[in-house]
Amino acid sequence: MHHADYTSFGKVSKKEALRTLNDSYLALAESQDNWVANLANCSSLLWHCYREAIGVSINWSGFYVIDPADSSKLILGPFMGKVACQTIQIGKGVCGAAAARREVQLVPDVNQFPGHIACDGDTKSEIVVPIVQDGLVRGVLDIDCLSLKGFDETDRELLVELCKNIAKTCKF
Amino acid sequence: MHHADYTSFGKVSKKEALRTLNDSYLALAESQDNWVANLANCSSLLWHCYREAIGVSINWSGFYVIDPADSSKLILGPFMGKVACQTIQIGKGVCGAAAARREVQLVPDVNQFPGHIACDGDTKSEIVVPIVQDGLVRGVLDIDCLSLKGFDETDRELLVELCKNIAKTCKF
Repeated sequence: MHHADYTSFGKVSKKEALRTLNDSYLALAESQDNWVANLANCSSLLWHCYREAIGVSINWSGFYVIDPADSSKLILGPFMGKVACQTIQIGKGVCGAAAARREVQLVPDVNQFPGHIACDGDTKSEIVVPIVQDGLVRGVLDIDCLSLKGFDETDRELLVELCKNIAKTCKF
Repeated sequence: MHHADYTSFGKVSKKEALRTLNDSYLALAESQDNWVANLANCSSLLWHCYREAIGVSINWSGFYVIDPADSSKLILGPFMGKVACQTIQIGKGVCGAAAARREVQLVPDVNQFPGHIACDGDTKSEIVVPIVQDGLVRGVLDIDCLSLKGFDETDRELLVELCKNIAKTCKF
């Protein structure tokens, strides 16, 4: 099996696709704790899972982590999609809110979110999930969608599980 | 201007597109030396530049860096494309050869390259450029293509320039 074959999901329900994604992530991270390598592959799994298996038109999937140069900021990590903002003040925008409040931000319409930061003007909805390890926020998982209401409670449940798996397997 | 707009190149020659890519990279890295953030955005620039402006069917663009846990290996960095091999022994495969010899590997047919490592069986050609900083190899830029002979001397020239710009702007 080639590594690239992990991105083949087939036609399944969203719940099944996101469970397979969690299993694939854990298989890839089994003997690897490097956060850059693990989150780079995880961004690719998310991109292909949403666009090809789930059929949701996401335009960005990836990660921001605490900036080692300034812990009041998030800094861009591995991702798939168009060029993105390099840093985000914790507390600002959807990613900054998820990191500050340690709570999932499920945003059906980004233009209704106070202080939304538009890295890409085409983004309509967004989900951001904090990654908490040893009681500390290490970063956030961020997915943007070209449609309104791109994400629901199933996404929340399985992406929270994914962020727990990331916290278990990565050395930040 | 949104950050995502850096990925709009327009219809230009390959040389012009790759010069614009170098300029965009330098603009994005101007006040940022974090290698993960800079190489994540650089992977996105490469992906959109080759697929949309140059019109070459690349299937992977990204980076491997020296593994901080074992300096005899390269480890996966930020990229665009399908899931990839996490580590590569320096000296093995096209990426490992570029790192070991400190020389660009321009491979018109990967199946003719002795010891080629297939992360994705669909890859037909590849270019790998070493990133050298302070006399040390810090990593490699790697682009895979679905067609034979996907890259030529123009790619070599402008990607070598890009890797010099990366070495100037990133703290590894």
